[in-house]
Amino acid sequence: MNNPVSAVDFAQALFSPRAIALVGASGNLQKNTARPMRFMRKHGFQGKIYPINRTQSEIMGEPAYADLADLPGPIDHAFVMVASDLVLPLIDSCAKAGAKVITIYSDGFGETGPEGMAAQDALIARAKQLGVRIIGPNSIGLADLHSGMILSVNAAFETEKLVTGGLSLVSQSGSMMGSLMARANARGFGFAKSVSVGNESDVTVGEVIDALVDDAQTKVILLFLETIRDSPTLARALERARAHNKPVIAYKIGRSEQGDALAQSHTGALAGNDVAVDAFLRAHGVLRVRNLETLFEIAPLAQRYLGKTAPHPHPARVAVITTTGGGAATVVDNLGLMGMVAVAPPPAFVAQMAQRGMKIRETTIIDLTLAATSAQYKDLLEQLLRTDWCDAVLSVVGSSAQFHPELAVKPLVESDKPDTKPLAVFLAPEAMASLGLLQQAGIPAFRTPESCADALSVFFQPRISAPPTLPAISWPASCPQQGLLTEFEAAQVFKTLGVNTAQAQLVSSEKPAHSVPYPVVVKVSSRDIPHKTEAGGVKVGIHNTADFEAAVQEIGRNAKAYAPQARIDGFLVQAMESRLIELILGYRNDPLVGPTIILGAGGITAELSPDFAIRRAPVTLEQAHAMIDEVRVTKLIKGFRGLPKGDCEALAQAVVAFSKLAAVTGVNVLEAEINPLFVQSNKVLAVDGLVRLGD
Amino acid sequence: MNNPVSAVDFAQALFSPRAIALVGASGNLQKNTARPMRFMRKHGFQGKIYPINRTQSEIMGEPAYADLADLPGPIDHAFVMVASDLVLPLIDSCAKAGAKVITIYSDGFGETGPEGMAAQDALIARAKQLGVRIIGPNSIGLADLHSGMILSVNAAFETEKLVTGGLSLVSQSGSMMGSLMARANARGFGFAKSVSVGNESDVTVGEVIDALVDDAQTKVILLFLETIRDSPTLARALERARAHNKPVIAYKIGRSEQGDALAQSHTGALAGNDVAVDAFLRAHGVLRVRNLETLFEIAPLAQRYLGKTAPHPHPARVAVITTTGGGAATVVDNLGLMGMVAVAPPPAFVAQMAQRGMKIRETTIIDLTLAATSAQYKDLLEQLLRTDWCDAVLSVVGSSAQFHPELAVKPLVESDKPDTKPLAVFLAPEAMASLGLLQQAGIPAFRTPESCADALSVFFQPRISAPPTLPAISWPASCPQQGLLTEFEAAQVFKTLGVNTAQAQLVSSEKPAHSVPYPVVVKVSSRDIPHKTEAGGVKVGIHNTADFEAAVQEIGRNAKAYAPQARIDGFLVQAMESRLIELILGYRNDPLVGPTIILGAGGITAELSPDFAIRRAPVTLEQAHAMIDEVRVTKLIKGFRGLPKGDCEALAQAVVAFSKLAAVTGVNVLEAEINPLFVQSNKVLAVDGLVRLGD
Repeated sequence: MNNPVSAVDFAQALFSPRAIALVGASGNLQKNTARPMRFMRKHGFQGKIYPINRTQSEIMGEPAYADLADLPGPIDHAFVMVASDLVLPLIDSCAKAGAKVITIYSDGFGETGPEGMAAQDALIARAKQLGVRIIGPNSIGLADLHSGMILSVNAAFETEKLVTGGLSLVSQSGSMMGSLMARANARGFGFAKSVSVGNESDVTVGEVIDALVDDAQTKVILLFLETIRDSPTLARALERARAHNKPVIAYKIGRSEQGDALAQSHTGALAGNDVAVDAFLRAHGVLRVRNLETLFEIAPLAQRYLGKTAPHPHPARVAVITTTGGGAATVVDNLGLMGMVAVAPPPAFVAQMAQRGMKIRETTIIDLTLAATSAQYKDLLEQLLRTDWCDAVLSVVGSSAQFHPELAVKPLVESDKPDTKPLAVFLAPEAMASLGLLQQAGIPAFRTPESCADALSVFFQPRISAPPTLPAISWPASCPQQGLLTEFEAAQVFKTLGVNTAQAQLVSSEKPAHSVPYPVVVKVSSRDIPHKTEAGGVKVGIHNTADFEAAVQEIGRNAKAYAPQARIDGFLVQAMESRLIELILGYRNDPLVGPTIILGAGGITAELSPDFAIRRAPVTLEQAHAMIDEVRVTKLIKGFRGLPKGDCEALAQAVVAFSKLAAVTGVNVLEAEINPLFVQSNKVLAVDGLVRLGD
Repeated sequence: MNNPVSAVDFAQALFSPRAIALVGASGNLQKNTARPMRFMRKHGFQGKIYPINRTQSEIMGEPAYADLADLPGPIDHAFVMVASDLVLPLIDSCAKAGAKVITIYSDGFGETGPEGMAAQDALIARAKQLGVRIIGPNSIGLADLHSGMILSVNAAFETEKLVTGGLSLVSQSGSMMGSLMARANARGFGFAKSVSVGNESDVTVGEVIDALVDDAQTKVILLFLETIRDSPTLARALERARAHNKPVIAYKIGRSEQGDALAQSHTGALAGNDVAVDAFLRAHGVLRVRNLETLFEIAPLAQRYLGKTAPHPHPARVAVITTTGGGAATVVDNLGLMGMVAVAPPPAFVAQMAQRGMKIRETTIIDLTLAATSAQYKDLLEQLLRTDWCDAVLSVVGSSAQFHPELAVKPLVESDKPDTKPLAVFLAPEAMASLGLLQQAGIPAFRTPESCADALSVFFQPRISAPPTLPAISWPASCPQQGLLTEFEAAQVFKTLGVNTAQAQLVSSEKPAHSVPYPVVVKVSSRDIPHKTEAGGVKVGIHNTADFEAAVQEIGRNAKAYAPQARIDGFLVQAMESRLIELILGYRNDPLVGPTIILGAGGITAELSPDFAIRRAPVTLEQAHAMIDEVRVTKLIKGFRGLPKGDCEALAQAVVAFSKLAAVTGVNVLEAEINPLFVQSNKVLAVDGLVRLGD
């Protein structure tokens, strides 16, 4: 088994190969397989290109080779475009020819079902033995636009001249790689690299991002995602991107259930739970946009301002200037829907501008008449960008953007703009020339009010830091190390973590005596009866010893009748507790994104409309407080309409403690739940719960 | 006082004037006031144009007139572009010159404050005396694009050639009239008429729509709205449009509170309550879109299919075919967010296509390989448009749309498409040429996945019929005819309408005896104490006569202490009732849109997240049931998790009965509320309520 390729060699072979083999290249210019050669010659790639074709000795006037063994020199990268059953033996010959990376366009692998998956696994097994890396299969290819290295059959590269720039795109959809580049190009956005990762059988999105973090030409990384694969690698790469202040923007399918379900059929990956994916992306600094074109439209905003803006309140405040009140209103309305606030200038600012010879009013939209000169507009803009009463400035330009582009963008381009407060622009009419001029000047400009509001609201989302690294927590020795725990055992785990639990005692059926103060609840304790209530295994409101003993008898009989084979550990006696509100606290080691924690409203009415907050686990105390604020029902314990207040500090501490399940060693915690978690005025209490361990 | 202009004369003068006066026209081509003349000459208007200018005898080489009295012949329409203080006397001279419609571009009227409003009122008063109609003031003008009649200073008409077609636009924002036309034009959408209504001091949106219903060139009516003015006229016009099957599409600012608040500052109208406005628009058949460009992108969908599609279930089912799975997923995901379902072809259909020589799979997105021929694509499309398992077909086109427009749209254009099931198209890449070809062929095509999903979901929203016309209902003689009613009086009103109320009796403080079965509630009855609980004026859970008598004493003392001057009618004794859920039923004569009814969740937790349904009042039984289904909390009485069922039929009847407040004569019901309305297993009960009457 050869050594795997180093990160540096991988990046070099991936994006800057000195020599390339095009395996299965066709000389028939109508065919897709002729494209990479054609594209590279058209766009001036300077490296060596070796077309491999069994039957033709010449392709596009250049020598072709029947076999990789015949090449006159070593290659760094092979692009494979042959039928799926011919791919496996090529791994060896590509490696032998020197390839460190093999990009496989061929489809018919993991995306088609179990048989294809087996063939894909065989490819990867062989590649690992040989120490070569695989992009794909089912990848439409990749490109370095600056060098003209187009290892792709994507029609987007048919364009006469590649539009180069600082964006790099990583896409789980091959066709969308081209579509997004075409849309961005039409707006003057240029690209550095683009990569279709295909089935991600070996190299996943994370590793490509990692390479892009080190790529000097890449200023902003764009992701088109359908699912998450290899989340630990992705998380590391995203944190490196964050550390290098290189913005990562994502558009991800799956905000709706039916969208989420598509990931399965489309790429062969397990469908992800979108809210968990969202928590993962946010935890690692990704700006996830909702509108497709925001993916690239937001890039200048992120590139220029991310990590540089002053601390801002939530919701962020936007000052709006315009000559088209109706046009500005379309953005302000959408900003409102996304929780941002358009702010009117305060009297002091109005006075300040009056002194500078400009009359504005204290309205949410500063509507300048057409009489305002370009110099006045520029001055107002500069003053706004230096005030402390707004966090961003939005300029909405009217018909001048359509008919007098240079004039319309002049004050925007020429004004002195600090990088500490974003300026964003929406053009109300159709105005491609103005959009282009703003793009050239690096000013965030948006074609629709929706994407403008989308971008601003995503940019100003409260930042979430990466999950903290915690010391390992040992599993309580008294608890099982696999399978489902009983409620009593689960409570031991919660206590170990530092979560306060309702006073309880496990008593045997033989000697049913306890020291829990009345009134109490009695529950059967059996890992074989997870649904205790259904089994008649719970009695509440027990006020004395006689009732207690009768309850134990009755519950015991019920449990036996319900599940004759069930092993009964005994009976759990628990103090009856009161609550101001009840919550659910859940932990899950998500198969897609790893440990997550969820805090939500409890009780039956909470099922009518979702009311929860989710984060990667573990969380900090600050994050726990933010989660509490996101759950609507917690308003009821924060002074709403004179209702008694609950102990939010204890609640936050409980959330932090519970999230430490992510740091537990020695067992595999699949999921855990406290349901209900009672919030009282001076503490919180786990009243019931479960823990499920993997093998 | 002259007779007002007839609808026919109004429409003729509005859109097809034989002669026009341009009052305040400038000969300086740089000035806005030179534009209408310039535009009309450029675009070939054939009617007479008389520029009116005090100082110049010639404008653009044509004779100008110092005064309207000097004109060589009568005019139909005058366009006024002078300073605001010069407008009033012009009403007389325009009318004398024959004008039936005067469009006023001048601003500085109602939109500026009370002083401007007074000046505006004076204009309208004089116009009414003279029998002429006013568009504006503060209108950027209007146009008939087919004849080149451009009575507007809007820069959008600078264009070399007007793009004519079947869309007509009515806009409350002058600048957005031009911006929207420019955006639509760039996509090949042509216009018939466009009208900026300005301050709507006389002619409102409704009257313009009314004229457009009769305009043969207008196929679809687009509205850009900031508020609603003169809702009765608007409702009548919308119903005429519906009767003529002429689709009306609206984009309205105000989905967010801060957007809604803008209407005030921007046009001088009272801010509307957006949910009421939404209910109004839906009640009258308007398709309200969420995305700005959907306003025109949806037009072919509405024009071709509205009123012709087969009855469809809710949610509507969409079959999706594509060559770009990722591109299709972007739409499917958004459809899911908007409550629409992408459906996989059933086995029978897969078999049917196999017989026709085409292999497709039972997946939500029918992903055709690039190998599928154009003929196969066309055949699949035709078969899908004739199945009964989907309500619409969505085609998502990939890179071919960018590089081979004719080829890409060929199967879409050439397929045989019945008008009974919509075909909609989304183009994944930048593909303006393909969008243009589809637009020419009348096929609904969308530039973004968001607008595509927006359009389809709005199109397939359940249709709501207009509020039924009811016989007048007399006000109960025993109740006051103005001001706030007591709870007891309100209950009399509810009973008159047919709403079941909790058993109750009003007793005097002197002889506090009653025949309501215990347990009871006792409340002080005084129209001067609307907040009874706060006043210590309510006692619940009274089980016998002694407690009852003590309660009356205590409540009496409390009320006296709380409001010494209050007139106390007596004490209301009410039976204690139980409930499965409690709701709020509200009625409001909305200042913007007229009578509305709202059904919502009751209790304190309902305040945490909105849970209500709203309609124009009165409602039909069918509409009442739809409202019940929209309120989430009603799930709890419809068999959710084995909970007892509530009487939804009685609830619907109560909603219908309560909504009859809209048919009450003799008094002006401003608002009324039943809070709480208890739902039981076999009936509903109004437990408390209020009615507020105007003078």
